Amino acid sequence: MYLIHFSFCGKKYHGWQFQENALTVQEVLHKVLEQIFKIKLPYPYGCSRTDTGVHALEFLATLPNFYDIPADSLKKGLNSLLPDDIRVYKVEKKEGFKDARKLVEGKHYRYVVCTKKVPSPFTSSLSWHSPYPLDVPEMNKALLHFVGTHDFASFMSAGSEVKTTVRTLKSARIFKTEDYLIFDFLGTGFLKHQIRIMCGTLVTVGRGRLESGSIPGILSGKNRELAPHTTLPGKGLYLYKLFFSLEKTNSYVFPDSFKEIIW
Amino acid sequence: MYLIHFSFCGKKYHGWQFQENALTVQEVLHKVLEQIFKIKLPYPYGCSRTDTGVHALEFLATLPNFYDIPADSLKKGLNSLLPDDIRVYKVEKKEGFKDARKLVEGKHYRYVVCTKKVPSPFTSSLSWHSPYPLDVPEMNKALLHFVGTHDFASFMSAGSEVKTTVRTLKSARIFKTEDYLIFDFLGTGFLKHQIRIMCGTLVTVGRGRLESGSIPGILSGKNRELAPHTTLPGKGLYLYKLFFSLEKTNSYVFPDSFKEIIW
Repeated sequence: MYLIHFSFCGKKYHGWQFQENALTVQEVLHKVLEQIFKIKLPYPYGCSRTDTGVHALEFLATLPNFYDIPADSLKKGLNSLLPDDIRVYKVEKKEGFKDARKLVEGKHYRYVVCTKKVPSPFTSSLSWHSPYPLDVPEMNKALLHFVGTHDFASFMSAGSEVKTTVRTLKSARIFKTEDYLIFDFLGTGFLKHQIRIMCGTLVTVGRGRLESGSIPGILSGKNRELAPHTTLPGKGLYLYKLFFSLEKTNSYVFPDSFKEIIW
Repeated sequence: MYLIHFSFCGKKYHGWQFQENALTVQEVLHKVLEQIFKIKLPYPYGCSRTDTGVHALEFLATLPNFYDIPADSLKKGLNSLLPDDIRVYKVEKKEGFKDARKLVEGKHYRYVVCTKKVPSPFTSSLSWHSPYPLDVPEMNKALLHFVGTHDFASFMSAGSEVKTTVRTLKSARIFKTEDYLIFDFLGTGFLKHQIRIMCGTLVTVGRGRLESGSIPGILSGKNRELAPHTTLPGKGLYLYKLFFSLEKTNSYVFPDSFKEIIW
């Protein structure tokens, strides 16, 4: 199989997963792969569904090995045919085949909130702008209640079929710069919209409209109606790093250099 | 008059200056001003023409004082009606009226070249990617020949009517980071495409296809045919800072923190 490691700017895409009437990253990658292999191909498998506007600094797609194109040639071909907002940084070739989801054992997601009075005209699709002043210490208290293994049913959007709504958030933090608030989440898996709803809840706490101490009750209630109806937009969310072994997540330290997100 | 200070991401615009069949920043600003003032208005005056794709961290437009809208209300109105890629950071109200061009006595332009092997999918419209290795010391030697007062006719595109092609480049430098080359230019005025042609010439030197020592001869020849036919694309160019007095340019130090360009 081929393991295609790439990053993408989600601005113009309706997420990863193929959709009938909207442009997605999976569709674009699939078309280019068919151009290169010159045969009809199945859709490449992605390591994660992502929502409209969400970005990925690291993403993995897998594809069965159809022709004997060397990994490096495939990388070059992809980068020459893909649009500029999808860039392949590594292609590997391995025996057998696995769904990309099965290869990824941990993910670091980052949510970027711009707190500037006047946001930069360059980042409107790369961060969410908060028009409200936010109480960071209170948000930090709320955040700590999310860490650990919980049933996150209250923080999941309807319409996704999952066997269990229990997930493990290994660590999380809020990092503040002069003009940005960064929310970091490291976990083994996340529910539909979970991070965007958790971030919306944190912002609700930061605005003083919800007490940080109410998070445990919302979690134990296991009902989406209990959490605030605030889902932050996808454009502030980045799939920042993938982990291919659970062990590596243990020693991971969230990077402070948030500007590397795009430069 | 109103002095409207703003910044814009040039990605989707065909520059500042109004064009019949293409979207420009001047047209967008004009429409929003007419919405706010509720009357037909002349086009706002801009401090500079800019080319397609060129960005501005600082830009100035002036407009005669039509109604008694306070400066701060105008700023709020503009930011609520303008698209996200144009952001007003200051509006002033002053007596009389002046063309914005007459108010600006110096400009710092910055050109950003990405030298990463695989460029970021987020910056394809915010920098130019050089696929070639570049000899920076040699480019630096070439750059120094541009500094000073020269006839820059060899570095101007055809089709612009100017009284004189003599311009003063007060200072310039090349700044190298791990993944980027930054060209900084501080001058009192520039000819059509001058910076993009100078940058194209510097890259030609950096590739070893032109000797740095040939720049003085190209300048003194005063003929566009003498300089390389390489005009770097607008997307790497930023109008970085405006100076409202010539004195202030004397003590200016080019900032090293290039990432602030967009974050």
